[in-house]
Order: sequence, then structure tokens, then C-alpha cells
Amino acid sequence: MITTIVNGIATDQISVKDRALNYGDGVFETIAVQTNKLYYWAEHYRRLKAGCERLGIAAPAEATLLTDITKLSFTEASSVVKIIVSRGQGGRGYASDPQNQPTVIISNNLWPDYVESYQQQGITVRLCQHRLLINPALAGIKHLNRLDQVLARSEWQNNMIQEGLMLDQNDNIVEGISSNVFMKINKQWLTAPDSHCAVAGVMREAVLRRAAKAGLQITQRHVHQSELPLIEQMFVCNSIWGIVPVRACESYEFKSADDIKRLQTELEQDTKSAPYVI
Amino acid sequence: MITTIVNGIATDQISVKDRALNYGDGVFETIAVQTNKLYYWAEHYRRLKAGCERLGIAAPAEATLLTDITKLSFTEASSVVKIIVSRGQGGRGYASDPQNQPTVIISNNLWPDYVESYQQQGITVRLCQHRLLINPALAGIKHLNRLDQVLARSEWQNNMIQEGLMLDQNDNIVEGISSNVFMKINKQWLTAPDSHCAVAGVMREAVLRRAAKAGLQITQRHVHQSELPLIEQMFVCNSIWGIVPVRACESYEFKSADDIKRLQTELEQDTKSAPYVI
Repeated sequence: MITTIVNGIATDQISVKDRALNYGDGVFETIAVQTNKLYYWAEHYRRLKAGCERLGIAAPAEATLLTDITKLSFTEASSVVKIIVSRGQGGRGYASDPQNQPTVIISNNLWPDYVESYQQQGITVRLCQHRLLINPALAGIKHLNRLDQVLARSEWQNNMIQEGLMLDQNDNIVEGISSNVFMKINKQWLTAPDSHCAVAGVMREAVLRRAAKAGLQITQRHVHQSELPLIEQMFVCNSIWGIVPVRACESYEFKSADDIKRLQTELEQDTKSAPYVI
Repeated sequence: MITTIVNGIATDQISVKDRALNYGDGVFETIAVQTNKLYYWAEHYRRLKAGCERLGIAAPAEATLLTDITKLSFTEASSVVKIIVSRGQGGRGYASDPQNQPTVIISNNLWPDYVESYQQQGITVRLCQHRLLINPALAGIKHLNRLDQVLARSEWQNNMIQEGLMLDQNDNIVEGISSNVFMKINKQWLTAPDSHCAVAGVMREAVLRRAAKAGLQITQRHVHQSELPLIEQMFVCNSIWGIVPVRACESYEFKSADDIKRLQTELEQDTKSAPYVI
């Protein structure tokens, strides 16, 4: 069974000289696969390419990635394909060599068994102590420097809490550790501006697009921690979870999920409408 | 010839599931080795341990590291030992498993041939456009999230410039891309406060200690970019370069290096005084 392809070859090992290991010098994507369909492939590839461009890494060709993905053994109906593109192997020192050949790692991973329950039952979230300081040079791209998320996620072990929300240094609610967050305050749906997101989520974009089509207005603005008592509905989203209602955050409960259920239904149109088939 | 040891075994490959690769979830050290002496071993081990503690990674025992280092083939009089400690292998997702076994990667690398010339002739530095936003939770430790340094180093190819100085968001000169920086203004030596350094340099500490012994006062305070015209002498330092005089930064030239030569001589006392022998 082939679970990992590195530069076209079936192996699960890479060189210790790889710059992804030494500096986190690369980008990644995680893509939902359902019955041989890659969900939001075009959007994932576009973000991967944009991330490579920002870091000055030669982005792998779309056709090469798709060829490599078909080499994986898809034995389950649902799984998660993860793509890592690193600048490649290098010597010591931060300077990169224009001759660096990127390392492309593609793996097939188990579909998490909790997704359906998250979507239907909702989750509980907390506010993380660890703050996000977002460097504009790195904002939005899904790069491999993820210690902020690792430290935030290490703050709790209690499995009654499924996600943490991260604040910036000005106490604005920016995003979830592995999701983007949407909040309804005073009948208005809000989410952090994309210029202010550590990760410009593919699902976040899909939600914005579908909401606009459905006539549900979503405003991009900072939401301050002090506005928490005013929140009427909340959801988080990412490529694997889809849209997941938040039932409670700290001591605040969100009883209604009307708009959220509607958005979940709207989003099914996306998954029905010809995702990339491998 | 054995150049790399991973968890005690001679190999130069690691699993694609390693969290150092996926998230930069770990720390590293680079140590100068001269004729089988590990320079500043105690200080390097102390920082490695502190970094592991900050990230919640079980630090490898000192004896284990030293045993592994002796497995490397030291064929040259000088070389650079690099140690990486990662949280180990994990599945997808930021949550770490308390059962994670750290991955310890130890490699022996070529001694850079330019060090002597840097120390004797000095170097030219530039100011980088890329800004350092230092999260207090990560300040000081030598973690594997190094995209700030990679992006700053990618700003120039011209090999007449040997190092870049990084500014914070308030235009203070914080440190070099791979060094700490000391500046003399109005007869007073200055360096950024350690709470404000992305990396608490082992050589920076050694310089502060030796300077104090030699009666040369060094004050830790922010130095603003606008003070550049006032700088009388400047040097950068790291574990491999030692103390390296800066001849010029942008359009400013620093003609004197009197104190710097004296500090270089003082520092030789350190290297003579029983570094760890392998």
C-alpha cells in the first residue's frame, strides 16, 4: 500500500538536509478526498502556488502533483491528502541556492472519524493564551512555521474542547488553531479580514462565496474579545471539517445555529458540482 | 564516514511524519568543533534544554547527546556539529501526543572557509526589509521556525554583503540574520535586550561575560535605525564566526575596531579554558 510519494517515488523518508526540517522553509495543503474526488482542488492548488511564489520556491506543476496523487493507494471512501512543498535540500545557513530542487511530499491520511459529529452536534471552543503576531510578509500562506498553532494547541488536554480560538496582540479574535471563525453579532455575520489571517482558508473562501450567492452578507472586520457576550451564532470551518457550529466558547453559549445549518446545506452544492476526479 | 546520527543510528533520513518537517516543532544548536573540542558545550546544552522545556519537549540527556556526537567521523581539524531535537513523529493535526518520542538528529558539517577572513578583515552588512515580529512565547529559543531569517536572507545575492541586520516593527536594530549585533555609540557599547532577541546567542552571552571581566561595559537597550549615523564601531557574533567586525552598514562606514580587536583577544581565553573534549 502506497501512503507517501516523495518527488514521484514511493517512500516515507526524506533527507535530514531538507530545508523544511531545518527551517520550516515550505508550504502545505490538506485536501479532503471523497470517493476519488479531490475537493476544492483548484483552490488548493492556487493557494499552494501563491505560497511558493511568496517564498520564492518554484511551484510544482499541477499535472505533476495530480500524477503523484494517483500513485497513492486510496483504500477508503474518504481520506485526507496532504501536500508539502519544501525548498529542497541545502547546506547549513539561511541562504538558499537558486539550484535548489523543491521536495514535494504527498501523503494519504486517515479521514478523521469525528467530522460528521462535529458538523451535526457542534463543538466547544476556548480562547487560547498564546497570541498570534502575524507578519504581513507571511500572512495568508500555509507555510510550515506552525509553532504558534502547536503552542496554542498544547494549552489544553481536556477532550470536551475541540478547538481553540487565537487572539492577536490587540485581543481581536483572528481564527481557530486549525480553522477560520465566523461570528454573528447584532444580526450581522463577521469574520476577520483576510489580510489579517494567518491562513487564508480555502473553506473560508468557499463560505464567503456561497454565502454571497445565498444572499447572506458577511462583513470582514476585526472582532474584539470584548464582543464575545454579543455573539449570537458562531461557526468554524476548514477543508476537512467543512462548516462546524460552535455551541460554546468559554462561558458563552450559542443556542441558535439557523444560518449555520442553511450555510451547510448551501455548501453541499459545491461538493456536488464537479470537484476534481482522480 | 558517518556524518549524521538520528536517535543513535547512523542514517541521514527521517520520516515524513516528523513534526520538525510538518510544523518546525523543535529546536536546534550549531556548535564549533576544533581539534575534538566542543566549544561552549555547557552553554549550548543549557539553551537546547531551555528551548525543549519552553516547547514541552523532553530534552535528551546530555550524556546521550555526547555519546552520539562521538559516533560522528571527525576527519577535519575544524567542523560544525548541528543538533536538532524535534518533538518526534506524529499524525496530522497540531495536537501532540505525550507519548511522542523526540527525534534527535546530530550531524557533522564542513567548517566554513571564510571565518578567519571575516574575523580579520571584517564584513559589510545591510538592513533587511523583512521585519522581525518577536512573540514573547518564542523569544530567545533557537526553534525551527526560521522563515523570518530565510526571507531576510533572500533579499540579496550580492556576495560583497555578508550579513543582514533585522529591524523590529518599531525600526529597532534587533540582531543579524544569523548573529547578534553590538554597536558603540557615544563611547558606549550597546546591544538589544535579551528579552527582545529572536535568538539568545551563546556567543552573545560569552561576549557579555568576557567584556564585563575586561571592564568593558555593555548596555542592553533598543538601538533605533535613526541612530545608525552615530555608530562608531560595530560587530556581529555567533558560535561559528566568533566576533566579526562590521566595516560598513549601508552608507555608513565604521573605521575603528579597537575595542573589537581587544574583545577578540579576550575571547581567546574562553577557547583556551577547557572546552568539552570528545
